[in-house]
Amino acid sequence: MRLSRLLRLQALLYNKNEKRLAASIKHMVGSKPFNLSLYKLAIKHASVAEESINGLKISNERLEFLGDAVLGTIVAEFLFIKFPYRDEGFLTETRSRIVNREALNQIAVKIGLAKLINEEMRGRNINAHKSIYGDTLEALVGAIYLDRGYAFTKNFILKRIIIHFDVDDIINTTTNFKSKLIEWSQKESKEIDFELVSVSGNQRFKEFLVQIIIKGEPVAEGKGPTKKKAEQEASKNACEKLNIPI
Amino acid sequence: MRLSRLLRLQALLYNKNEKRLAASIKHMVGSKPFNLSLYKLAIKHASVAEESINGLKISNERLEFLGDAVLGTIVAEFLFIKFPYRDEGFLTETRSRIVNREALNQIAVKIGLAKLINEEMRGRNINAHKSIYGDTLEALVGAIYLDRGYAFTKNFILKRIIIHFDVDDIINTTTNFKSKLIEWSQKESKEIDFELVSVSGNQRFKEFLVQIIIKGEPVAEGKGPTKKKAEQEASKNACEKLNIPI
Repeated sequence: MRLSRLLRLQALLYNKNEKRLAASIKHMVGSKPFNLSLYKLAIKHASVAEESINGLKISNERLEFLGDAVLGTIVAEFLFIKFPYRDEGFLTETRSRIVNREALNQIAVKIGLAKLINEEMRGRNINAHKSIYGDTLEALVGAIYLDRGYAFTKNFILKRIIIHFDVDDIINTTTNFKSKLIEWSQKESKEIDFELVSVSGNQRFKEFLVQIIIKGEPVAEGKGPTKKKAEQEASKNACEKLNIPI
Repeated sequence: MRLSRLLRLQALLYNKNEKRLAASIKHMVGSKPFNLSLYKLAIKHASVAEESINGLKISNERLEFLGDAVLGTIVAEFLFIKFPYRDEGFLTETRSRIVNREALNQIAVKIGLAKLINEEMRGRNINAHKSIYGDTLEALVGAIYLDRGYAFTKNFILKRIIIHFDVDDIINTTTNFKSKLIEWSQKESKEIDFELVSVSGNQRFKEFLVQIIIKGEPVAEGKGPTKKKAEQEASKNACEKLNIPI
C-alpha cells in the first residue's frame, strides 16, 4: 500500500492532459489510477504509436493480450457460477459471444472509453480500424489488472462490463450455424469440408471467403472479416439451402 | 475464513479414500484442500462420470473450461513481465506452446497427478483418452481457483507448473511452419489455401487431413489430431518441398 500511496503523490505533478485522463479513468473504472502510465499505454493504438530506440512499437497491443486473458477468465467464472447445470460446450460458446469484438466495441462506447479514444486519435481516421474500441477495452482491462490486481479487475468487469449484457437474451437469440451444419452432416453421414478459398485485403482489413463442400459438391459460400465469421456465414447459407432446421 | 475453517472440520469425517485424496492434493498443491469435493470432481473424467437425475454428466469438463482460462491468464502475465520488449504475437505464440496438451500431459506426470488419475481410472483404458492428464491438470487448476482463490492459484502455477518449462529453450527450438509459409507466399505473391480435406474418427479420436494448395496446385499434405497440428505438419512438408528456409 505504501508504494501505491507514493504513486498517488505523482498526481500532484500531472499536467493538464494527464489530469483529464486520470479523471476519465476514475469515471470509467470507479477509482483513481495508481499508475497513470499504464492507462496512457492502454489507449495508445498501434496506428499512433511511436517507435522506441530498439525498434519496438510502443502500443497497447501487449496490454490487449493480457486483458483479453483476464477478461476471458472472469467471464468464464461468471458463467460457470451462473449456469451450474450447463456443460462446457455451452459455457465456451456463450463466452465467445460475450467477449466478441462487436459486443466489446459497443461496451466501449457505453462506458465512455470510445470518447477518450476519439480524443486520443483526433484527426486520424478511426473508421479504418474497426475494432479499435473493443481492442482498447481489452487493453484497459490489462492496465487495470496490472495497476489494481485481480479482485479489483473482477469487480470492474462484473459491475461495468457484464452488466451491459442480457446474458439470457444472448443465449436465446444466437445460433451457431456451423455446429448445426456439422451435426446434420454427422447424422446424415455426409462428408463435409470447410474450404478457405481466399484471403484478400491488407493487414488491417481482411476478407475471408469460405466455401462449404458436401460430398464433393460446393453447396454455399460465405464472406467475413475473420475465417470464423466467413464459416458462420457460409454455414448459414448452407442451412438455408438444405432446409436444415435451426 | 470462517467458512473455510468449518470446511476443514469436514476432514475429521473423511473416509479412507478421501483421506488419501486430501493427502495427494496437499502433496501436489502445497496445502490441504478446503473443499475436497472440488478436487474429487477435478479428477472425474467424462468416461467414468455418472449421470445426474436431470441427465447432466457430472465430470471435470466444466472445471477444465475454467482452469484453462485461469492458466492462460497466469501464463500470459508471466510472459508479459518476463519479456517486456517482445510484441503480442510472440507472447501469444509462446503461451500456446506452454499450455499445449502434450506439455500439460507431461507436467501432470511430473507433479504426480497422472498417478492419481491412474488410480481413479483403474481397470479402464487410459490410452483411449490421449489428453486425459493435461485435461485433468486444467480441471485441477479450476478446482484450486475456486477453492483457494486467484493469488494462491497463481503461486501454484508459477511454482509448480511453469517451473518445469525451459521457456528460453521453447522459444529457440520451435518454429511455426504455417507462419513461415504464409510469410513466404506473401513475399512471392502466391495465393495459398489451407484446405481441410477430411476429418475421420470418433468424438475422442480424431484425425484431420489438411492439404496445402499454392496457385491452385496441391503442394503438400499433413495429418494430425487437431486441425492446427495437421496444418503445421502440412506446412512443414510444404516448406521442405519448396526449400523455404526455416
